[in-house]
Amino acid sequence: MTATTLQNDQFRLAARPVGLPKPGDWNKVEEPVRAIADGEIVVKTLYLSLDPAMRGWMNEGKSYIRPVAIGEVMRAGGVGVVVESKSPKFAVGDHVSGGIGVQTYWVGAADDKTANFFKIDPRMAPLTTWLNTLGMPGMTAYFGLLDVGQPKAGETVVVSGAAGAVGQTVGQVAKHLGCRVVGIAGGQDKCDYVVKELGFDACIDYKNGDVREGLKQHCPNGVDVYFDNVGGEILDTVLTRINMKARIVICGAISQYNNTTPVKGPANYLSLLVNRARMEGIVVFDYAPRYKEGVAALAKWMQEGTFKSREDVVEGIANFPDALLMLFEGKNFGKLVLKVAEA
Amino acid sequence: MTATTLQNDQFRLAARPVGLPKPGDWNKVEEPVRAIADGEIVVKTLYLSLDPAMRGWMNEGKSYIRPVAIGEVMRAGGVGVVVESKSPKFAVGDHVSGGIGVQTYWVGAADDKTANFFKIDPRMAPLTTWLNTLGMPGMTAYFGLLDVGQPKAGETVVVSGAAGAVGQTVGQVAKHLGCRVVGIAGGQDKCDYVVKELGFDACIDYKNGDVREGLKQHCPNGVDVYFDNVGGEILDTVLTRINMKARIVICGAISQYNNTTPVKGPANYLSLLVNRARMEGIVVFDYAPRYKEGVAALAKWMQEGTFKSREDVVEGIANFPDALLMLFEGKNFGKLVLKVAEA
Repeated sequence: MTATTLQNDQFRLAARPVGLPKPGDWNKVEEPVRAIADGEIVVKTLYLSLDPAMRGWMNEGKSYIRPVAIGEVMRAGGVGVVVESKSPKFAVGDHVSGGIGVQTYWVGAADDKTANFFKIDPRMAPLTTWLNTLGMPGMTAYFGLLDVGQPKAGETVVVSGAAGAVGQTVGQVAKHLGCRVVGIAGGQDKCDYVVKELGFDACIDYKNGDVREGLKQHCPNGVDVYFDNVGGEILDTVLTRINMKARIVICGAISQYNNTTPVKGPANYLSLLVNRARMEGIVVFDYAPRYKEGVAALAKWMQEGTFKSREDVVEGIANFPDALLMLFEGKNFGKLVLKVAEA
Repeated sequence: MTATTLQNDQFRLAARPVGLPKPGDWNKVEEPVRAIADGEIVVKTLYLSLDPAMRGWMNEGKSYIRPVAIGEVMRAGGVGVVVESKSPKFAVGDHVSGGIGVQTYWVGAADDKTANFFKIDPRMAPLTTWLNTLGMPGMTAYFGLLDVGQPKAGETVVVSGAAGAVGQTVGQVAKHLGCRVVGIAGGQDKCDYVVKELGFDACIDYKNGDVREGLKQHCPNGVDVYFDNVGGEILDTVLTRINMKARIVICGAISQYNNTTPVKGPANYLSLLVNRARMEGIVVFDYAPRYKEGVAALAKWMQEGTFKSREDVVEGIANFPDALLMLFEGKNFGKLVLKVAEA
């Protein structure tokens, strides 16, 4: 196999979206994979992680990470296999995880700081799990809950986006810590899943019924920790039910990412004052030095059979634009993953 | 002197206000001071503390303290002098601070838990100072800043309501800790005062100029601690200028207390996520066991001449309704105090 026989299909950002990304915001490019120099590798993309945060990366302006430039391959995490290597760091056949981008091949220096590839062990867990429980969403959930949420056994933890990538791990970790766990999710199927399969104590279907009533019913002792992935009305409603010294982990606000009007701020934020409560943001990259600790803890529970990782796999890189929209329509059930090639 | 010779002028809550309190929300009552039983005292009101929090106490519904009931004497802190005593706890002539209420005399058990009277020493500081720097506003500022704001020397601390009761102490404490201190206040007089008299590094006049531009200019290294007394647009603007790991102390939201529309939530709250920052509420009563520590620290600085306490004194209990409105119109300059009788 030589590099020039490989074709790299890419999705590049063509325009900054207004509201939901539309087809014209993407530019589909095909280019041959170039020959590699010393120290470089070629990674064949197997699975890409589709995440709500990607919407933010498409916007201009300062955030916790620089925006994707117009004309640049869309940023995405993923797992792949090394198919060419002129680096001692990786051998052909190694499975890696890192910032592959929305493309069928990644080409560059093995120690590229942006891609930040690291080896993963497919015998330890399926490849898609490395994009979910053992990947960024899992680390986000694990460290956000433990470090910022600081739940104690017996406390009540509420998590929105409960069946999503981060939510499923938040809830299961909280159960392992001895908390009462109440999810908020859209649809009976998702609610049934987190209760019956993942062991949450209850789940509120925000598409069918009143979240405030659900919280009253399922959190009889109030809310000690709220892990928020959605923002908007749900955040505001939970704020009316928090306990003294409650901790609110701000992980995301998927309900607000495609707004063309200003973000809806939490009108009930003065509940923080009344309850001497705290609202704090978390970005997973801060915990990079501790990922090994998180992976070890979650993998142990998975191997013991007390922890599940559910992915929702869509096939084909050509479906990337539509698959991404599933996140904002709440259509994914579990961590959304795009399968790009057979492992 | 006998109890029946004393007349008690009271302001009782007649109706729950919609928006700004209006004259009809008060019921002015005159009643004779009753004879006291064993264990009881009569306190003659000298000064009453007028605070933004009083507006919240007039609303129905759960908060950090029960609402004032319709027909009840309006809750207010104050200092007074004991004029009759059948309790060993206080002697006639003792000066006390506590929950006197908006009335010219307080009558009841010396150990009443609601009034919670304690002796103050008028030789240590003027009586009005015991309602300001050495009273609730001072304790709110001291413990809110130290415990929740956690400023470190060299950091930038921004405080709104800078010339108000809490703000003046927040800024001066932060200066004593070696911070850069930038106030936000309404009007050139207040800004001049906090810079020239209290030693703030700068002050932004929100009534005359752009707060965002002011923050850019005066906080070249961003904002590490924001002590918020006002909420609304100013909170939202400061959120755009915070640093990584910033701490936002939610002490109050005077801009929102008289809303007839819903509270304006901070639309830029996702800055907490981007900056891994924290927003946390504080209620002074939690620090009651540590008041002595706060009073000692602030009194020491005052005695050393490195700390000022400024009160804005309005005379006459009859002026209570109008004086209270001064807070919401930003008319007070320093801690607002109502002088009820000569000391």
